[in-house]
Amino acid sequence: MIGIGASPGIAIGKALVLKHQEIEVSSKKIQSADQGAEVEKLEKAIDKSRKQLEAIKEKAVKELGESEAEIFSAHLMVLEDPEFVGQVKLDIENNLDNAAFATQKIMNQFVSIFESMDDEYLKERAADVKDVGTRIIKNILGIQSGDLSSMDEDAIILAYDLTPSDTAQMDKDRVLAFGTDIGGRTSHTAIMARSLEIPAVLGLGDITSQVKDGDIIILDGLSGEVLINPSEELLEKYEHKKREYQSYRKELEELKELPAKTLDGHEVEVAGNIGTPQDVEGVLNNGGQGIGLYRTEFLYMDRENMPTEEEQFVAYKEVLQGMEGKPVIIRTLDIGGDKKLPYLNLPEEMNPFLGWRAIRICLELKDMFKTQLRAILRASTYGQALIMFPMISGVQEVREAKTIVEEAKRELEAENIPFDKDIKIGIMVEIPSAAVSADIIAREVDFFSIGTNDLCQYTIAVDRMNEKVSYLYEPLHPAILRLVKNVIDASHQRGIFTGMCGEMAGDPINTLILLGLGLDEFSMSALTIPQIKKIIRNITLEEAKEIANEALSLATPEEIRDMVNEKLNKLNITIM
Amino acid sequence: MIGIGASPGIAIGKALVLKHQEIEVSSKKIQSADQGAEVEKLEKAIDKSRKQLEAIKEKAVKELGESEAEIFSAHLMVLEDPEFVGQVKLDIENNLDNAAFATQKIMNQFVSIFESMDDEYLKERAADVKDVGTRIIKNILGIQSGDLSSMDEDAIILAYDLTPSDTAQMDKDRVLAFGTDIGGRTSHTAIMARSLEIPAVLGLGDITSQVKDGDIIILDGLSGEVLINPSEELLEKYEHKKREYQSYRKELEELKELPAKTLDGHEVEVAGNIGTPQDVEGVLNNGGQGIGLYRTEFLYMDRENMPTEEEQFVAYKEVLQGMEGKPVIIRTLDIGGDKKLPYLNLPEEMNPFLGWRAIRICLELKDMFKTQLRAILRASTYGQALIMFPMISGVQEVREAKTIVEEAKRELEAENIPFDKDIKIGIMVEIPSAAVSADIIAREVDFFSIGTNDLCQYTIAVDRMNEKVSYLYEPLHPAILRLVKNVIDASHQRGIFTGMCGEMAGDPINTLILLGLGLDEFSMSALTIPQIKKIIRNITLEEAKEIANEALSLATPEEIRDMVNEKLNKLNITIM
Repeated sequence: MIGIGASPGIAIGKALVLKHQEIEVSSKKIQSADQGAEVEKLEKAIDKSRKQLEAIKEKAVKELGESEAEIFSAHLMVLEDPEFVGQVKLDIENNLDNAAFATQKIMNQFVSIFESMDDEYLKERAADVKDVGTRIIKNILGIQSGDLSSMDEDAIILAYDLTPSDTAQMDKDRVLAFGTDIGGRTSHTAIMARSLEIPAVLGLGDITSQVKDGDIIILDGLSGEVLINPSEELLEKYEHKKREYQSYRKELEELKELPAKTLDGHEVEVAGNIGTPQDVEGVLNNGGQGIGLYRTEFLYMDRENMPTEEEQFVAYKEVLQGMEGKPVIIRTLDIGGDKKLPYLNLPEEMNPFLGWRAIRICLELKDMFKTQLRAILRASTYGQALIMFPMISGVQEVREAKTIVEEAKRELEAENIPFDKDIKIGIMVEIPSAAVSADIIAREVDFFSIGTNDLCQYTIAVDRMNEKVSYLYEPLHPAILRLVKNVIDASHQRGIFTGMCGEMAGDPINTLILLGLGLDEFSMSALTIPQIKKIIRNITLEEAKEIANEALSLATPEEIRDMVNEKLNKLNITIM
Repeated sequence: MIGIGASPGIAIGKALVLKHQEIEVSSKKIQSADQGAEVEKLEKAIDKSRKQLEAIKEKAVKELGESEAEIFSAHLMVLEDPEFVGQVKLDIENNLDNAAFATQKIMNQFVSIFESMDDEYLKERAADVKDVGTRIIKNILGIQSGDLSSMDEDAIILAYDLTPSDTAQMDKDRVLAFGTDIGGRTSHTAIMARSLEIPAVLGLGDITSQVKDGDIIILDGLSGEVLINPSEELLEKYEHKKREYQSYRKELEELKELPAKTLDGHEVEVAGNIGTPQDVEGVLNNGGQGIGLYRTEFLYMDRENMPTEEEQFVAYKEVLQGMEGKPVIIRTLDIGGDKKLPYLNLPEEMNPFLGWRAIRICLELKDMFKTQLRAILRASTYGQALIMFPMISGVQEVREAKTIVEEAKRELEAENIPFDKDIKIGIMVEIPSAAVSADIIAREVDFFSIGTNDLCQYTIAVDRMNEKVSYLYEPLHPAILRLVKNVIDASHQRGIFTGMCGEMAGDPINTLILLGLGLDEFSMSALTIPQIKKIIRNITLEEAKEIANEALSLATPEEIRDMVNEKLNKLNITIM
């Protein structure tokens, strides 16, 4: 079977199949007089859920660390959310629904709202609500959850889906791999598996009905393959691949702290993308030499009000201190489009990706913007901060944004608050017009960082979330390479640097070309840092330049991809 | 007062104010027994409306010509639309609404559906439905419409809004100008005014309440100004401007048939954009040297089924014959995005502009696409047809589309049906990736035509219909100029031509730059052709090149615009 390889590695072992437990909730109405009792039932279940979650969280902190256990804080927050619980109670009172049915009803409403959002982060909130809601319902109905905390032997866990609660309770030392019927690369199971370094293949369709407990399974998180009761021959083949992967991992482990320097001594920076101060640890552990993109949206999300200057300052300071003087590029608020904030009254738009978002909002809501800039400036004395503006389309916006930075600086000076007076200011190059007119914008900034996700979407006119056209989304489109080259060349002519913080930077297939085009900084999700370093350390800049030039001469992404794969082979650079 | 200058020219004269007649429709329910009588009332009103419309249409054909009278065929079609009338009847029967109220209810439903569409053509359908619905309601209620067919003296007509029925009935020889409270450049009033060459200023807010019958009015359709009872001094000033405008029009009239040749002998083509065969006449009357964009969508719209090959063939043939051997660039179906077809089940999309549309649909619905290509090929023997594919993002799509052209050609050959074997094939350059990789695509096509409306939207990442961000939509953005240059240069290196069929080509402010960048063909709405020819005929190519180079060195659209205006002044080229 083929699914989505969501966490790399190869596991071979016995299957342990978790049966998917459909909870039956009766829609039977209650008597008016029983309302009070029903609400009490709900409250007791919430109370029990709270105790369970606190216990799980404690276990998770011990086994996974603070940052991975955060998810259970989020669950506890759902439980305390007056909006959610309040609506369930209202439903019991107004519609005389029984407590379990009311919980399910409101849960489904919340889930469908979150799921309809296009932002991966908000989509995950749906999973949280579902997990918590299901827990409450089970506690109302007195259903016991399957317990995975004591496993007798090592096993590959196969399930319909795994909730964070499931994974947190597992005996990690016994779990060889995860395989699930549903889910994708951004699901909790995927994230958890990657952080535990357990191989996982998700979205397998019906693996749980095809496999019995005790079947022998090969699960290949690299290719997404799952083999059931394979032949001796296949077992041998995959044992071999497993050893290869292990030595590959070992190699990465050994080189991750080394500089990202080519064989002929050209050094670039390999950095990490983060969303919260908690992510700093992962970047450092993987040998990241800086933060190429600190997405500050998370500070603004999941709350009722704008974060204060002080709250922001604390977060930025924590990141800067954590990075101990290494560069941290802080991107100013990139909200709008598919990311809404409840306290900003953003309009419904026909084409949100071409709408009012990011710097376009910040230049109108100047007070909000200045508050963030003040917080960044105040934090800038605790490390090496750089300010980056998202969604810049032309030089006029850069000038306006810089004017507001100047205002913030003057205010702080007047208040005698220290800040880094030479703080560098740059832009995300993610709108084609910025990439095409990079020569003009370069005169006004200290650096560029190419945001390839949006840049590809706009340049190719394709919403990559739209499955009818996502096949067109292609970072190796000749036009994208030409734009990247144009941006890098324009920056070098002005003596400034160009980084890249879109997904293109973390995909090994692109590394040789980007290096050859002269990219100065590669920023990516922490886990891919060692891989990209390995590639850079195994080629000369001259060779990379030749490959980049050859890529620029080719007509289609397929031709470019084939060429790069051939070169990687020739150079004996393995990517797993 | 300032409104939207919707039809150029200056009028000075007495006001005739048409009072805005709000129709009061009672929502009183009918008795069940009266259903039959109420439906009969509706049918009588429809019958009366049909007779009125037929009379108006006859008058319009005589006074305005076939093509302008088309609107009343559209109105008659609404009247015959079983969907519309059927729903009104259903509403009378099911909800016991009275006939007038039911008509108003269904009319409003249809109107709001059409108005929510982003396509200008479909938005106009809303006006049609409103006009017809209101006529039916008036006939049900026995309300007489104001009659404009006999005016005693020349007058400037001021109204809340003018329906096509209003304008058709007017005594054109007595109407000096139109001014309205509501409406914009694409409203029927605007279109009618331009085609009658009557000055018009629309969207004035409350002109009808500020002016009394007999007030002296100056209406400037160039600037959008309307002055009420002006001073002698102002009257003199505008009399002067009026004479200037008249001599400007005369100059255009005299040069419109002359070639679009610069003072130093460089000749380009100035062509027209059309939507239907009826538009050919206007292009020829204005000295158009070809059709740079024939939008074939209209053949597919407002109907229940796909148009047959024969229907399409007839339309294409009519255009080609009408153009008498001049080049006609036929764009293949550009549907999707905001333009839906009822018989194509197009998905709802989060970002329709970045979604499944145009060539993306045609490459999947190959039979539909091949039918159109066969119709174009069959028509190609009746003139000089060129085929143009919309929304091309990369070379792969060109190759696939050309394969289908080849299939269509082979089929016709096998069927012994003649066609132009050397028919030229080109693409719209409207996606940034096509503009950036024009050098690659140029190897596979015979021409480019830059579609600046979409190209600007994607390049600057702005939906120009979104009023929160439309200020960013700017054809003179330095990035757009660089892309246009890149496309033209790439085409000339391969010995092929580049045209432009977006609105940028018809705006005089851009002509000098586009000429200097080397644009070979300018295609636009017919009425602006003489103006653009005038500019081209008043400059040398060398001067235009210098201006283009200077534009490329500037940082913002404002700087570029100021520079061009200065040059136009210096060169003594008036634009009115």
